[in-house]
Amino acid sequence: MQRNKNIAKLQMGYLFPEIGRRRRALLEKNPSAKIISLGIGNTTEPLTPHIVDGLKSAAVGLGTIEGYSGYDDDAKGQRLLQNLKEKLAEKWYSANVRPEEIFISDGAKCDCGRLQVLFGCDVSIAVQDPAYPVYVDGSVIVGASGGYNQEKALFDGIAYMRCIPENDFFPDLTRLPRTDLIYFCSPNNPTGAVSSKEQLERLIKFAQGNESIIIFDAAYSAFIHDRSFPRSIFEIAGSRSVALEVNSFSKSIGYTGVRLGWTVVPDELRYSDGSPVAGDWSRITSTLFNGASNIAQYGALAALDDEGLKEMQKTVDYYMENARIIKQGLTDLGIRSYGGVNSPYVWAQFPGKQSWDVFSTILEKAHVVTTPGSGFGPSGEGFIRFSAFGHREDVREAVARLKRTL
Amino acid sequence: MQRNKNIAKLQMGYLFPEIGRRRRALLEKNPSAKIISLGIGNTTEPLTPHIVDGLKSAAVGLGTIEGYSGYDDDAKGQRLLQNLKEKLAEKWYSANVRPEEIFISDGAKCDCGRLQVLFGCDVSIAVQDPAYPVYVDGSVIVGASGGYNQEKALFDGIAYMRCIPENDFFPDLTRLPRTDLIYFCSPNNPTGAVSSKEQLERLIKFAQGNESIIIFDAAYSAFIHDRSFPRSIFEIAGSRSVALEVNSFSKSIGYTGVRLGWTVVPDELRYSDGSPVAGDWSRITSTLFNGASNIAQYGALAALDDEGLKEMQKTVDYYMENARIIKQGLTDLGIRSYGGVNSPYVWAQFPGKQSWDVFSTILEKAHVVTTPGSGFGPSGEGFIRFSAFGHREDVREAVARLKRTL
Repeated sequence: MQRNKNIAKLQMGYLFPEIGRRRRALLEKNPSAKIISLGIGNTTEPLTPHIVDGLKSAAVGLGTIEGYSGYDDDAKGQRLLQNLKEKLAEKWYSANVRPEEIFISDGAKCDCGRLQVLFGCDVSIAVQDPAYPVYVDGSVIVGASGGYNQEKALFDGIAYMRCIPENDFFPDLTRLPRTDLIYFCSPNNPTGAVSSKEQLERLIKFAQGNESIIIFDAAYSAFIHDRSFPRSIFEIAGSRSVALEVNSFSKSIGYTGVRLGWTVVPDELRYSDGSPVAGDWSRITSTLFNGASNIAQYGALAALDDEGLKEMQKTVDYYMENARIIKQGLTDLGIRSYGGVNSPYVWAQFPGKQSWDVFSTILEKAHVVTTPGSGFGPSGEGFIRFSAFGHREDVREAVARLKRTL
Repeated sequence: MQRNKNIAKLQMGYLFPEIGRRRRALLEKNPSAKIISLGIGNTTEPLTPHIVDGLKSAAVGLGTIEGYSGYDDDAKGQRLLQNLKEKLAEKWYSANVRPEEIFISDGAKCDCGRLQVLFGCDVSIAVQDPAYPVYVDGSVIVGASGGYNQEKALFDGIAYMRCIPENDFFPDLTRLPRTDLIYFCSPNNPTGAVSSKEQLERLIKFAQGNESIIIFDAAYSAFIHDRSFPRSIFEIAGSRSVALEVNSFSKSIGYTGVRLGWTVVPDELRYSDGSPVAGDWSRITSTLFNGASNIAQYGALAALDDEGLKEMQKTVDYYMENARIIKQGLTDLGIRSYGGVNSPYVWAQFPGKQSWDVFSTILEKAHVVTTPGSGFGPSGEGFIRFSAFGHREDVREAVARLKRTL
């Protein structure tokens, strides 16, 4: 039985496990080190009371004949799903999308994986560089890339769209080849950049001209407070025939461990034979997936009513105050940074240095875990990502340590 | 943008959506029909009190700083996962597998999908015929099959292992070609057959001789009450180097909507290059998946302590009494049936008839939803699957209606 040759193409461990290994290595050397993590984008603050109430009553309800539901295609499961889709369409999308275009899932990362299976191995793809590793790794796994090019530190057969300070973290579309798929994330992980309406309009035109499909990752859209920036690709005219959107409750309400997300596939999104992408997506999700946890869904329903939305805003504000503190600290240190204003990620620039070296210096001197920018793609080299997810006192302490040791 | 050619190979809708469509069609024609479903294997009984307590305290805990956890690789998430794996290794596997060989997931169906991505498109596969549709459909989606053969009503390039009453629902291994993967489900969905120790020993030998990997689906193992039948492939000597096992909390504790399952990948399971399958599986799950809901995990932990295990047995016994009632009803009608003794499925034989015709007759005359055997593969033709998942009074009423109308 041969090993899958596509998986053999993958490099090293997935970025975050590798960071975990280095962190454990430090702890072995220095068991008393009080490590603070501003690395992985993992939420740290408790779920808020109204959402907890939603989860609790869901659990209690499942213990009764009236409240029990099984697979999401039974009557109660369908009603729950329908309510959630309607609330999302109304509260999140201001009716820019219809409830039946929303597919509820166990998270944006998992949906990315299924999208890669949906489109298969015969597609060409473009990703922002730097980008969330799952777009590339998942594409490699399904066979949609060539091999790893050691010299260039990237995969052959994938178009890397350079996003750097010099181009305002928006790719130069005039120099890009046509691809079937374009992964695009705004607010961006890892750079923290958020694309303007005008930039997204250019992206949509580009996709229209090339008959490409944009996989728009809006997992951080709740962190946009300057509403002149679009929170959804579907705020842009013409998007419905060239884009789908992935989103998540993970960061906005602290659901990283509870698991819930969704994908919007507009009816107008079609393959070249005219068949709807949503039809195949529905087939993929009903064959390879079995619905998101009903308890998680009840909690999200609570999160989308007036009280829940207020709590969501408080959670977002908490992390954004962390981002402000990190950004200020870096500025005080004379380190230039990007992002962190409409996004929970701060992208710090260390000109002329290697990301993993800076990562190791910060880890060993300050006992602060960050994420090396080069782990997100070659254009991330020389950058470090600071995540604003953390307890306030830890963020303050981390910044104080950076000031003492860097 | 071309449609994925592998998805285009799939036939009709996935079996259960098609049944749903026929059911809705009946309701449109006859809106007052009180339809009883013994079709899809969807649980109907409330979660039991101790498990509800586990879920409730998980929800409450997530609302506190001490109890909150995010992604399952943070300290609290890791501890929870570790506890669950240890409990499963001890209580479910009597230490036949080690905790670190257990990978917790959001369900067996979802893990089957990821396993198909793991092994990729260059593998040959064998499935029992009839079988749970996900093995075939998922393999088709990743490109591991040929096209659909209308004449034979099966996919080219897949070995269908005939399981019929004449061979005690165990395939004639001497007539089977070598394949890379062998999907094998016991207790079987849909036939309700459970394989003996001696049969599984033959299967293991066959896999050893062919260097095949067995994907053993044990999702219904909790329903085996005659413990002379193995509940896990890992009770069989030699299995660890040729098999992995998929399992689920869906049916045993009513978690179909809560979502939790697991896959065991033994350390000895290796590719021909000597590399461990578990290594790639770990990479796949960390790239395309983001952990099972922590709330669901806390509930499952409760289900695996002494009180929880007692409740699980009660839930299983409830459904098995339903199976007994269905089987008795069929016997009274002179209809021969299989399964339903160590499995919640009763496999009823209608010699000389077409499954979908019998399905429609039962639906239209008795307003009872079943599942047509042919939907599970060509050797299911002439059979109907009755699911024992239902409220007792509905099961009794369904049987009474069958007796009145057939």
